[in-house]
Amino acid sequence: MNGAEATLATLADAGVDACFANPGTSEMQMVAAFDREPRVRPILALFEGVVTGAADGYARVAGKPAATLLHLGAGLGNGVANLHNAKKGYSPIVNLVGDHAVHHQPYDAPLASDILGIARPVSVWAKASTTADTLVALSAEAVAASQGALPGPATLTVPADSAWSPATGPSAPRPVPARGVPSPERIEALARRLRAAKKPVVLMGSLACTDRGIRAAGRLNALGWRVMTDTFISRLPRGAGRYAPDRMMYFGEMALADLAGSDLLVLAGTKLPVAFFAYPAMPSVLVPEGCETAVLAEVEEDAVAALEALADAAGAPERFGVVDRTTPAAASGELTAYSVGESLSRHMPDHALVCDDAVTAGLPIFMQTKTARPHDWMMLTGGAIGWAMPAAIGAGVAAPDRKVVSLTGDGAGAYTVQSLWTMARENLDVTVVVFANHSYRILNIEMARTGSGQAGPRASQLLDLSHPKMSWCDLAKGFGVPATRCTDAAGFDAAFAKAMHEPGPKLIEAVFG
Amino acid sequence: MNGAEATLATLADAGVDACFANPGTSEMQMVAAFDREPRVRPILALFEGVVTGAADGYARVAGKPAATLLHLGAGLGNGVANLHNAKKGYSPIVNLVGDHAVHHQPYDAPLASDILGIARPVSVWAKASTTADTLVALSAEAVAASQGALPGPATLTVPADSAWSPATGPSAPRPVPARGVPSPERIEALARRLRAAKKPVVLMGSLACTDRGIRAAGRLNALGWRVMTDTFISRLPRGAGRYAPDRMMYFGEMALADLAGSDLLVLAGTKLPVAFFAYPAMPSVLVPEGCETAVLAEVEEDAVAALEALADAAGAPERFGVVDRTTPAAASGELTAYSVGESLSRHMPDHALVCDDAVTAGLPIFMQTKTARPHDWMMLTGGAIGWAMPAAIGAGVAAPDRKVVSLTGDGAGAYTVQSLWTMARENLDVTVVVFANHSYRILNIEMARTGSGQAGPRASQLLDLSHPKMSWCDLAKGFGVPATRCTDAAGFDAAFAKAMHEPGPKLIEAVFG
Repeated sequence: MNGAEATLATLADAGVDACFANPGTSEMQMVAAFDREPRVRPILALFEGVVTGAADGYARVAGKPAATLLHLGAGLGNGVANLHNAKKGYSPIVNLVGDHAVHHQPYDAPLASDILGIARPVSVWAKASTTADTLVALSAEAVAASQGALPGPATLTVPADSAWSPATGPSAPRPVPARGVPSPERIEALARRLRAAKKPVVLMGSLACTDRGIRAAGRLNALGWRVMTDTFISRLPRGAGRYAPDRMMYFGEMALADLAGSDLLVLAGTKLPVAFFAYPAMPSVLVPEGCETAVLAEVEEDAVAALEALADAAGAPERFGVVDRTTPAAASGELTAYSVGESLSRHMPDHALVCDDAVTAGLPIFMQTKTARPHDWMMLTGGAIGWAMPAAIGAGVAAPDRKVVSLTGDGAGAYTVQSLWTMARENLDVTVVVFANHSYRILNIEMARTGSGQAGPRASQLLDLSHPKMSWCDLAKGFGVPATRCTDAAGFDAAFAKAMHEPGPKLIEAVFG
Repeated sequence: MNGAEATLATLADAGVDACFANPGTSEMQMVAAFDREPRVRPILALFEGVVTGAADGYARVAGKPAATLLHLGAGLGNGVANLHNAKKGYSPIVNLVGDHAVHHQPYDAPLASDILGIARPVSVWAKASTTADTLVALSAEAVAASQGALPGPATLTVPADSAWSPATGPSAPRPVPARGVPSPERIEALARRLRAAKKPVVLMGSLACTDRGIRAAGRLNALGWRVMTDTFISRLPRGAGRYAPDRMMYFGEMALADLAGSDLLVLAGTKLPVAFFAYPAMPSVLVPEGCETAVLAEVEEDAVAALEALADAAGAPERFGVVDRTTPAAASGELTAYSVGESLSRHMPDHALVCDDAVTAGLPIFMQTKTARPHDWMMLTGGAIGWAMPAAIGAGVAAPDRKVVSLTGDGAGAYTVQSLWTMARENLDVTVVVFANHSYRILNIEMARTGSGQAGPRASQLLDLSHPKMSWCDLAKGFGVPATRCTDAAGFDAAFAKAMHEPGPKLIEAVFG
């Protein structure tokens, strides 16, 4: 048994059952090991941003890490943007990054680079292997580290000789450290402060938004307290039958207006809310004047248990308000983000998984699907667009019995368009909706907000995607995914309904004004 | 004048006339500044790997840096792989990476990351701006730093408030430091050692392979000394009328066999030759036993001047052997890399620029084009595939009067397929040839070489691109580039001839067995 085989067995013993991969020569032993370890499924992508985004989507749905297999610093580099998203969304991932054999590392061969240097900004844990046995031991450590108090990508280099040399054997799984729970005293004190406040708000972060966390939030809301989530949540259970917390607004001035008058902001598994970007003469911190802040649970703590304890301590009822299912009438007329949202609300099946990095279209669709059948909404946690298609791959692998819907703009989709190929190859049950507005629409809005004035002819060129217009149907065909173009609301509604009733990958190009 | 405007003016004053860009909100002031600085041309790409690869290609042709404009750490991350290639090829680039306003940086907003941490492994210089005036001063420093003794990417963060705040004015260009020249004593001593050697070899690195460097090499060769280049050269002038040095073989055992019996290896602007990858029981250093090594010029020194001085010191003749133009007969029968090379040799016009990251097809084509019309061959210097299409964009921008030919595999091309859109948008005179062999063919070879054995069913899945087969004609159509599919040698010859005679972007999908 060589290092590669012992490593894969170690991962499998620790519960890792999928490996998204784009390997090269230095990873050939790891590749060969898949033939000897049937418990880990290898899934090829044409580009590493697809690999890491898929691992993120997988983690959000499976609740455990997938592995990735990447080719030295350059391959890892291609995966950085979606690892950034994963880190900001607290998604556990185990990155195995091939490296030159240890004896070859001093020679600065063409592919040599500072792998850990590239890895650290997007990893919660990053270590280098030097021998077969350290590789195996570190792979067990990486699985646990990715699921620590601050979950996220754990990155391990795999020198070719660590992989090809004999190993003693697999390493036993390491215990995943339990998350800290806030003390009863802190909970009691917060319950008193909340009761004393005139207009309190509980703000939930990604790690608080589990099914249990949302139920506890519903109980708190039944006391008359406002509950909100951060603007971008890793995975939000929502739809009919569930409590629907408010969502922090994206633009800072709107968020502050929305929070005006609040006198206590309680943080549950999140940090102080801040603006997504800075703007001239606009505040960074989104806490209105006169509003105190208090911490129910740090990000590293068990915010779900804390929310439940708070609900109990505050005497919150077990029953709380949930969303009723309402079905919008079939849309007609112009195709807009609102009409798309209505079609999603009409046709998404129970327990659909939505991956959304559609920057300007996403919010209206989110609003229109509040009363859809129960589903999970997965958001762009790190702001690096080109995430929704890769994440949908991971979601589809993690939950083959659930329909996955990927919502992306033509700007965002173009970053990782190669995702379509893996969807076709693995015959994943994913429907991709591309909003083809032929511009970086958000930037046309931001141009004014940043005080940059009206875009002139040359600036406009950097915001425009209309010359030439991408044909998403042709791109999908090129990668083997059947596609349809829709230009009105009724056409989209029919195409989306069809996609929801047929398994397998599909792309719908929604052409917007 | 704000920091953004003063920075663009500073870049323009220092000779920077192109900026490849994929900006976001934090870069809006830089975007707006293009309307006020007509000397710098903004060129949009849909993905940052295209941006950085284009800047690399531009630098290799223009001999000076282009700027890039990237969106925080995530955008830079997407550009890492082609910055790696640029660094290994000593290409000057000035990366402007937008960042949050300084007062916003402590809050860990979703897009916040360690930008310099990501930048350092792929940069020769990396600094952070804090005010408008430091931004402007550092932008002048970055242009000079990118062209230092070790040229390469220089990366500067551009906090949004450095861009939007008032600046004193542009900063004057900084002098580019002259490269050191080896002493006459070193040259004389080397000339003596070379004369005394039985079978000497002079090995040239990327920075030695200018037109002047190749002429000096021809003179040395006229003395009976063997001259070689590294396997991968940033830009190699070649074809009819030029001296053609040998090329170091890719596989280590073949390189060592080729060098067997050499007793002196003289390094001209390069390092000790090493294997591209390590393999079990194979040497890393490609210097045969009994062969001494000596340094004519370090990478940081002026290898071209050193080669000329050596030729003079050794009494080399001014006349040397050059390649005669020969025109292969029109190919027929099966479409192979050899037949493609013959078509290139027949039809490439004078001074064509070839960008090549076709891993398995590249070498046969390189051999077949030895007697083509004079041209420049640009190679994958860092091993990170997905370079040849982006680089062709930069070459086309730098030399609009020259035909650019981009050679890429279907595996390599898929990494940065979005390049096609920028080619269409800018109407660049680029012909892309994609070798569609539907596999990572090199990895099937490397699988055996690394001792990993025969790929079984699961390992094979990670090397295979045949399920589904990408349709490059559809992908090109989707991005607005006209495309043709060729399946035999005569068809390819006709399509390539046509592409050489018509301006504008074209894609030829060459379907291999």
